[in-house]
Parts: sequence; structure tokens; C-alpha cells
Amino acid sequence: MKIKPECATCIVRQVVDAAKEISREEEVQFKLISDSLSCIKEVYGPKAVPAWMGTKVHRYIKKISGNQDPYRRLKERANKLAMRYLKNIEGDLKKYDTKPPMERLRYKVKLAIAGNVIDFGPYSTDVDIDKKFRETLERDLRIDNSRELLQDLREHQRILYLCDNAGEILFDKILLEELKGYCEVVAAVKGGPILNDATLEDAKYVGLDKVVKVITTGCDAIGVNFQEASQEFLREFERADIVIAKGMGNFESLTEYSIEKPVYYIFKAKCPPVAQFLDVEVGDNILLKS
Amino acid sequence: MKIKPECATCIVRQVVDAAKEISREEEVQFKLISDSLSCIKEVYGPKAVPAWMGTKVHRYIKKISGNQDPYRRLKERANKLAMRYLKNIEGDLKKYDTKPPMERLRYKVKLAIAGNVIDFGPYSTDVDIDKKFRETLERDLRIDNSRELLQDLREHQRILYLCDNAGEILFDKILLEELKGYCEVVAAVKGGPILNDATLEDAKYVGLDKVVKVITTGCDAIGVNFQEASQEFLREFERADIVIAKGMGNFESLTEYSIEKPVYYIFKAKCPPVAQFLDVEVGDNILLKS
Repeated sequence: MKIKPECATCIVRQVVDAAKEISREEEVQFKLISDSLSCIKEVYGPKAVPAWMGTKVHRYIKKISGNQDPYRRLKERANKLAMRYLKNIEGDLKKYDTKPPMERLRYKVKLAIAGNVIDFGPYSTDVDIDKKFRETLERDLRIDNSRELLQDLREHQRILYLCDNAGEILFDKILLEELKGYCEVVAAVKGGPILNDATLEDAKYVGLDKVVKVITTGCDAIGVNFQEASQEFLREFERADIVIAKGMGNFESLTEYSIEKPVYYIFKAKCPPVAQFLDVEVGDNILLKS
Repeated sequence: MKIKPECATCIVRQVVDAAKEISREEEVQFKLISDSLSCIKEVYGPKAVPAWMGTKVHRYIKKISGNQDPYRRLKERANKLAMRYLKNIEGDLKKYDTKPPMERLRYKVKLAIAGNVIDFGPYSTDVDIDKKFRETLERDLRIDNSRELLQDLREHQRILYLCDNAGEILFDKILLEELKGYCEVVAAVKGGPILNDATLEDAKYVGLDKVVKVITTGCDAIGVNFQEASQEFLREFERADIVIAKGMGNFESLTEYSIEKPVYYIFKAKCPPVAQFLDVEVGDNILLKS
């Protein structure tokens, strides 16, 4: 999908967030933001893809600041926060062990979406995330292709699961364990730090590698970029019968390619441009088969 | 006061809002926003004053679009909305006719601040404004120099009242009627369209000119800019014993000058940079004597 005019506001806010993580000095923040405005102007336009525009801008701010991982502190916080939330729902989760496969799958997809709300900039507070987390679990899937997913799981052998953010991957882990009951599963995280996206370090921190084989995309692009991806990633993508793509970045970028296998998108529609693209409301939970 | 690094996000959002008012064509919106990013980059920095940065950017978008009044539709809507709110509180307002001067003044100042929430961009809804309007009236003044104001009103002859937004001026009108009980009052609106600031057209629409003498600043600058103001405005500023300045734009710009007469600032602190400058919370109601 392509950006909408209003995506200018969001990308500038992201730059402000990043600048504040990189330095506490306002002079430095001003300089980083001001320089980034030129970069944004270069990549902004009707043909820009949100995830790829974000990639260019976040790479630029890493380059000019010399800070290769501006979101490190926020990612660590997200991982810890996710562990706390997981404790809160462990009782509920256990109850689903004995539920029918369809119900169990749907609940774990929703958990993975709930994990997708742990996606904070500096203005967000734990309280907000806590509320959004609970609301996500209480709400139905607005687009619900869980029946198709269950059928595909039963008929196929191999899944490539594309992870999104740090913190969130702890909830992906629960869904991945469920998926392993049907198929062989490989999970992919980013090949280098970008935004608050999960990297191999985060995957190891939450023990994702104990559950499934974890690879990386081979690059620090938000979402998927086949031109930049590693051979290993491309091979796993090729081998997979089903791709499950988590979060908006993967959705924004994969919808730019024509892919001849089932792709399931799991995410919360967090902004008007993505919600409008799917004709849903902001905040809606999505499990969409492409 | 000067801008904070995060003001980049707000000014870009304003440009997006303006572009959407100017055209429904996304191609046109993209072009306007992209071009404006260069203008923002030029004026953005630690020495920028929010109101003056806004002036330059909004003038730029008027120039490149050829639309001299992008907020016209929103200003008309604001005027109508204000009339509806006024109807809702007419009963309450009447009760204050017989209350002591201090209580009456404070209520009308709060009404004028409540009017200051009618300041919407396209994402705002009537429901939100309705709620904020009521909350403003229910909340105390966080900075409350109403005693000083009453005393100054009793000891002086002449007030210059600097208006802020369309719609809002209908509530200023109520406060102006109260102030007229003590002093001669002149009200100033903007000399040309800028953002959703009230102009002579709005003043006449709500009948402000029936209550007090209305002049303009002589220019289309947000807030006050003495270098650009008309002789008439400068003369009235000079003659006034007290200046009452409504809204954040007037606060942001007048605090850049040293003024040797009492200036009262009446506004709602709508954003973190302004709230931090005064050490108050976002949403607080302010009646501050400089």
C-alpha cells in the first residue's frame, strides 16, 4: 500500500521520538529533526510505501546521529512490559489448553494482536497500553479468516512467520507454539535495529529461539524488502507453504508484491490510512488472508 | 517563548490540515505538504517562536496554493458551533447577573477559555469539543490572577483585548460586555486570514462590533508582531492601560517583548511546550498577569 498525505505527520513524530531517545540535549534534537525534514521531503510522495519511507528516514537518523539503535531503551522496556502482561493472562491462557482448536487458535491470534499494541513512543504511558491490551482481547476480530487459517494449517507443512516489534514477540511466541502443533515453523526478525522492530537480540531475550528456528530478514528494512533481504530469508520465503505476517509494516510492504502463496496478515489497524485501505475502523483487529 | 523540538510534529499536522481544506485531490495535498516541508525546515529551530513560525508556514501555504483563506469553512463552522454552545449555557449565564463582581468576572473568563477549545482540525469532532467545553467550565483556573484583574479594572480606564480564534470570539463578546462595566474597551482581530484566527468578517458575524470598538492588527500574523502591525493597532496598544491577550498565539508572541503595562493572558494550555513553559498541565485554564 501507499502512504496518504497525512503520513507526513506520523513520520515527523517518529523522527521527534527518535531524536529524544538519541539525546537529551534540545540543541541536538533540533538539529536531528531539522536535518531529517530534508530526508522526509525526498522520500515523501504519492508513490511512497509507508514501511519503506520509514526505513529510509530511520536509517538516515541512525546515520547522522551515529546511534545505530535509537530505540534500544524502548525495546528493552517493551520486552519487560510484555513479560508483565503475560503473567496477568497466564490463568486465562491455561484455560484454552482444553478448548477446541478453532477457539484456541483465535484466542492466540488475538493475544498476538494484543502484543502488537506494545508499540510506544515517549508520549504513551503504561496505563494506555494496559487499557489497549485488555480492549484488544475483549474485542472480536473485525476481519476474521481464522477458519481459512486453520484449514491451511491442516493442509500444509511449512510456515514462515514474520515478526514485528520487540515486546510483542513474547506473544508471537505463544501463537508460534500453537502453530507448531500443525506445521514446521520458522520465524524471521529484522537483520539490524530499525525503529522498535524485534532483532535477534530480542528474540533470544524472550526465548523465541527455544520454540522455533529463528532467522533474520538479513537487513534493517521495516517490513519486507525482497531486494535487500538475505539469501537465507529468500530461501525460507520460497520454501514456506504459508506466510504469516505480523504488524502494519509487513502488511504495508508485502501488499506491494504479488505473492503466489497464502499470506495471513495479523495486526491491529493503528492509523487511518491503514484502516481506510481495508475499509475498517482504527483499532480494529485483523486476521486477513490475502 | 520559543518552540520545543516536538513542535515540528504540530506544524506539520497543521500543514496537513490546511492542505486538506485547500483541496480534495490527494496529488495536490501531497504537493502542498511536500513543498511546505522546505518552508518548515527554514523556520524551524531553537530560536523560533511558535506563533511566528506558524505565521511563516501558513503564509507560505496560502501563497503556493493561491488560496488566501484555507480555514474559511472551519471558521464558519466554528462560529455556528459557538452559537449553539452559547444557547446551551444561556440559563447559567443569566444566573451570574446577580452574583458578586469577582464571581461574575471569573465565570466569564472561564467562558472565554471554554470558547478557546473551539479550535478544531479535521480530526476533531463536535463530541470532543462539547466534552472539552463542559470540562473547561467545571474546572478551576490553574493560574488565577482574577483578583489582580478586578483591581486593575477598577483602577484603570482603557483595555485593549486581543482576540484569538473564530467561534471563540462569541464568548469573548460576553467577557467584553463585562469588562465594559469598568473600562473603555477596544478589541483587535487579525488584519487578514491566517489559520482559524478571527478576522473582521468573523467579528461582524458574531456582532462583536455592536459591543466594542473593533480594530485589526493590520496584518495576518498569528499572535502579535509589532514590526508588522498597523499604526492604528500600535496606537491602541500604546493608549491601553491594560492588555488582555486571548489564546496561545498571543501568549507565545507577546512574551517575546518586554511590555511596561499589565498584560493578562487568558487561555487553555493545549500542548506540552506551552504547559511546560508555565509549569502547568496540558488542559489547564490560565488567567495570568505578566
